[in-house]
Amino acid sequence: MIPDELFSPRSVAVVGASEREGSVGRAIMENLIERFKGTIYPVNIRRKTVLGLRAYQRLSELPEAPDLVVVAIPAKFVPEVIKEAGKVGAKAAIVISAGFKEVGPKGAKLEEELVRAAREAGLRVLGPNCLGVYDAHTGLDTIFNPSDRQGKPGPGNVAFISQSGALGAAILDWLHESGIGMSKFISYGNAADIKEWELIEYLAHDPKTGVIGAYIEGVEDGRAFMHAIKEAVKARKPVVVLKAGKSERGARAVSSHTGSLAGSYRVYEAALKQAGAIIVNELNDLIVALKTLSWLPAAKGDRIGIVTNGGGAGVLATDAIELSGLRMADLSSDTIRYLRERLPPAAAVGNPVDVLGDAPPERYEVAVDAVMADPGVDAVLVIGIMQSPAFKPRETMEAVRSAVRRHGKPVVFVGPGGEYTTNNLKMIEREAGIPAFKTPEEGVRALGYLVTWGKVLRAHGVGGER
Amino acid sequence: MIPDELFSPRSVAVVGASEREGSVGRAIMENLIERFKGTIYPVNIRRKTVLGLRAYQRLSELPEAPDLVVVAIPAKFVPEVIKEAGKVGAKAAIVISAGFKEVGPKGAKLEEELVRAAREAGLRVLGPNCLGVYDAHTGLDTIFNPSDRQGKPGPGNVAFISQSGALGAAILDWLHESGIGMSKFISYGNAADIKEWELIEYLAHDPKTGVIGAYIEGVEDGRAFMHAIKEAVKARKPVVVLKAGKSERGARAVSSHTGSLAGSYRVYEAALKQAGAIIVNELNDLIVALKTLSWLPAAKGDRIGIVTNGGGAGVLATDAIELSGLRMADLSSDTIRYLRERLPPAAAVGNPVDVLGDAPPERYEVAVDAVMADPGVDAVLVIGIMQSPAFKPRETMEAVRSAVRRHGKPVVFVGPGGEYTTNNLKMIEREAGIPAFKTPEEGVRALGYLVTWGKVLRAHGVGGER
Repeated sequence: MIPDELFSPRSVAVVGASEREGSVGRAIMENLIERFKGTIYPVNIRRKTVLGLRAYQRLSELPEAPDLVVVAIPAKFVPEVIKEAGKVGAKAAIVISAGFKEVGPKGAKLEEELVRAAREAGLRVLGPNCLGVYDAHTGLDTIFNPSDRQGKPGPGNVAFISQSGALGAAILDWLHESGIGMSKFISYGNAADIKEWELIEYLAHDPKTGVIGAYIEGVEDGRAFMHAIKEAVKARKPVVVLKAGKSERGARAVSSHTGSLAGSYRVYEAALKQAGAIIVNELNDLIVALKTLSWLPAAKGDRIGIVTNGGGAGVLATDAIELSGLRMADLSSDTIRYLRERLPPAAAVGNPVDVLGDAPPERYEVAVDAVMADPGVDAVLVIGIMQSPAFKPRETMEAVRSAVRRHGKPVVFVGPGGEYTTNNLKMIEREAGIPAFKTPEEGVRALGYLVTWGKVLRAHGVGGER
Repeated sequence: MIPDELFSPRSVAVVGASEREGSVGRAIMENLIERFKGTIYPVNIRRKTVLGLRAYQRLSELPEAPDLVVVAIPAKFVPEVIKEAGKVGAKAAIVISAGFKEVGPKGAKLEEELVRAAREAGLRVLGPNCLGVYDAHTGLDTIFNPSDRQGKPGPGNVAFISQSGALGAAILDWLHESGIGMSKFISYGNAADIKEWELIEYLAHDPKTGVIGAYIEGVEDGRAFMHAIKEAVKARKPVVVLKAGKSERGARAVSSHTGSLAGSYRVYEAALKQAGAIIVNELNDLIVALKTLSWLPAAKGDRIGIVTNGGGAGVLATDAIELSGLRMADLSSDTIRYLRERLPPAAAVGNPVDVLGDAPPERYEVAVDAVMADPGVDAVLVIGIMQSPAFKPRETMEAVRSAVRRHGKPVVFVGPGGEYTTNNLKMIEREAGIPAFKTPEEGVRALGYLVTWGKVLRAHGVGGER
């Protein structure tokens, strides 16, 4: 069991706390001082204070047992610190330090010592060779990259675990830029003690987490990993997996990166799908999937309706739907008649519904409302070509939003273009909570994840929506 | 033959010039007054001046024959204007007006009249139902969207033709945001007279154009279209095609959009490939391909080297290379020995070369230089995880740039992340002219287009590079 203290400690001791500019020990102290609400104990063998806080020479000198110990000192001293942490009664440790399994046989031996120390001391260890934890709710934050280059999302329901620290940090930064709220970010490094499957299992039961993302290179215990995913699915939490090492050369690169075995991707893929994971094929889609699954409910089926003010973009969306295994909804004759009566003669009232380049917000509202009301439609893609002078971004957003409120089916927005469009897409996301993308194909992929998630829920007997 | 006057007229008459706020006739006048260097003749039956310029009631009253006539009046008056334009000696016309073939049989008849008038008058007509032309070099600009929402690229070598006006405008806007320079943007609408193949043929011989992009829904004369692409290839200009209507439902949507027949995509795809076109699968890749082909030379082969400061991103790039049909370069034993001597022991010196998270610019320079110098490498992907405190964006860019200068092989840059990273990617593009992408997979696709282009050049016997 992973103790809650790994994420919500009342007190944290930082072994290797420092004032040295650019040091990991200083960056972690600054993070904690800025946001962490519990007690902070800097531990530094040579100092009386660190950044204004009283410092201790060793863990045994602390006035109480710290819930969590963060370790950022050279590898060779780490096993001893873990022993001491156990002795004083800490529940968990995060070992940031590198220099273990990933550097060869000597490091591997040190890592075995570390694990033995943890087992004997009865405390759980995250890492080593990791960035550790960012918990947006408790303010625990060991991600030591400089704040001007490392964005960290505000509180939300997305949890992310990463085998790679550097790529994990980049994803964390991107999630922040994308306006996605997070519960926990966990860089687990070498997974010497705490395994990726334990983290997923923990997150499956974490009340702050609604969606789980994972960057994985290799897993040691495939069976436990798949089981953990199933637990998350039972708790109605989608698990989005980006698996690296899909190709033969990629698998070779994995073993030179983290020393883990990537295994056959076909086998992984089949097992992941069976467990109910949502697999993304590339890094960009990871962000698309996490955003969409965080903000929208699962789709009850795969029939997609399109409302657009530009015919060309509607065709591209149609292609993307058909070629990705989703289905173009067939609108009912009632819907078609209704649209025919209310839209201009030149409008297309099949699917895609083309409300034409001069469409005012009211026309969008009529069309989106009618398409969403159609029982043959499970989800809707709304396209706004915003270069056109007639397009009113804010009013159109309101129109779409009010249709969404009435029908509750998932909707994403698409607007291709440059700066003006990009700013309005951000507005639509921020103010209406509607995922907004630059291309029809990306919008269709987003809906595809909601469709897959709906299928997973039904296949696992946990209902048609989240 | 398309007359040069369609893009470089000495004088333009605007039939339908107006001062009415929000009108097409006003927007076009404003565009021309702002940037067009030739003479502008507003034609308006009711006004003496338009925006300070002397206006004429009819074309026949102009003091000289205008090279080009832009027409933005209701459809039913258009054939008459075309006749008159021919009579006064104009060389070409752009008909912005809609209400022709795309609105049904009545419009189709009007369109036939328009074509007959053009043939009899001996002038060539672009459109109708189009946005017309933006020529970044001459300042001719009939794209009437408001300038605060419609970006237009500065001068450069990319030409783009679009069957869809709205989507074309969105692409134009996006090209601007992407920092891609353009020669000509052409929205050709219904292609009543001037056909898409004629435009490609014209651009194949246009000295200002180096790369041609096209958004196509359907072509009337496939043979002529393929022939025009071959001419462009012979002139060493890549033709990038985004074809809509790939699926059955997509093809149906095409015919309700532009009334053209999409045809079987398989047939198109085979013919396009044989002609030497570079096919992109989705809208985003159109921008990726145009940028990369505009800025970089063709690759002489498909063997890709990777230099990265993050193992995970290197693995994702490796996967993307292997799964997209490119090849991971096998570095020579000399290169490996050289790197082993100069990089830290923990660095990976196979391909991907991992210069580690603490890599200073010098380490990048050593690695990129060695990988580019290796005769077994045709193109290089450089990855910079910028959240890491050690990464120096500007100095690393300079290091990569100097290696590029020495070896001349194509290089793209990849940096995943949020705002800080995004800003630095833009800097790398702007200052070094190195295409920079947010994900390894997108970077690999970019290199894939250079590899394809190299293959096309060799297959058509026009040499290995551009």
